[in-house]
Amino acid sequence: MKTVLYPLFTDEYFMNEALREAHKAFEKDEVPVGAVVVCQKRIIARAHNLTETLHDVTAHAEMQAFTAASDYLGGKYLNECTLYVTLEPCVMCAGAAFWTRIEKIIYGTADEKRGYTLIDRPLLHPKTTVESGVLQAQCKNLLKEFFALKRDK
Amino acid sequence: MKTVLYPLFTDEYFMNEALREAHKAFEKDEVPVGAVVVCQKRIIARAHNLTETLHDVTAHAEMQAFTAASDYLGGKYLNECTLYVTLEPCVMCAGAAFWTRIEKIIYGTADEKRGYTLIDRPLLHPKTTVESGVLQAQCKNLLKEFFALKRDK
Repeated sequence: MKTVLYPLFTDEYFMNEALREAHKAFEKDEVPVGAVVVCQKRIIARAHNLTETLHDVTAHAEMQAFTAASDYLGGKYLNECTLYVTLEPCVMCAGAAFWTRIEKIIYGTADEKRGYTLIDRPLLHPKTTVESGVLQAQCKNLLKEFFALKRDK
Repeated sequence: MKTVLYPLFTDEYFMNEALREAHKAFEKDEVPVGAVVVCQKRIIARAHNLTETLHDVTAHAEMQAFTAASDYLGGKYLNECTLYVTLEPCVMCAGAAFWTRIEKIIYGTADEKRGYTLIDRPLLHPKTTVESGVLQAQCKNLLKEFFALKRDK
């Protein structure tokens, strides 16, 4: 009998972990964005948006994840890492990603208002590759649900 | 006899305080960039670049100053504050400045390699005004001295 090895650590698996972080933000009444940084198939940093809790606009999920990942690795470059984030990074986070030289960024859903791709100039490091649309519906729906609740208040 | 009141809290005064921070970075073998955030003529945050010390590319002087100023004010917006920074902010710091809605940014010298103005798109908040060139020579020379020492090593 042939053993079928299912791929365990897929992009969907890691994006789902980022979504778990986004749910934590939601529970804290924060805009629900979550992120994980993965190195050699291991999650080395997890974070979710904490801008309201910390009164700090720099406390985006990605920024915290970069700081935590660098701290874990003991170096400031993340050139062998992938960032999974539920929402497209903003200009600040893209600028931070540039400095980290991160290998890859995978985001769930586009940020039509403040996404870095709205600036039609290269903001990321030239070696950074980007994918999008992984678990897009889940990432987007969580944000829609959050803002719908806000409007109803 | 007429009393002459000299203006105490000029842009040069506050930029000199930012330069003092930059000197602290220099002493730590960090790229010498310093920043202060001023609100109603009072310095509410001081910071200098700590990217090497903290192994964290997000530890630019401006980022730390924004976080500290928001913490001091207990709110995330700095719309009545001025950032004095010795070097032109990068894309990350400009993106962070956008979120803070800071009233004014005054920088000492241009960053010809990574300054945010190299991206010919509006990155700052539309209400943020910008000045440059305050104590330009001192801000620039400190950086030149740092990189000259690095090359000689």
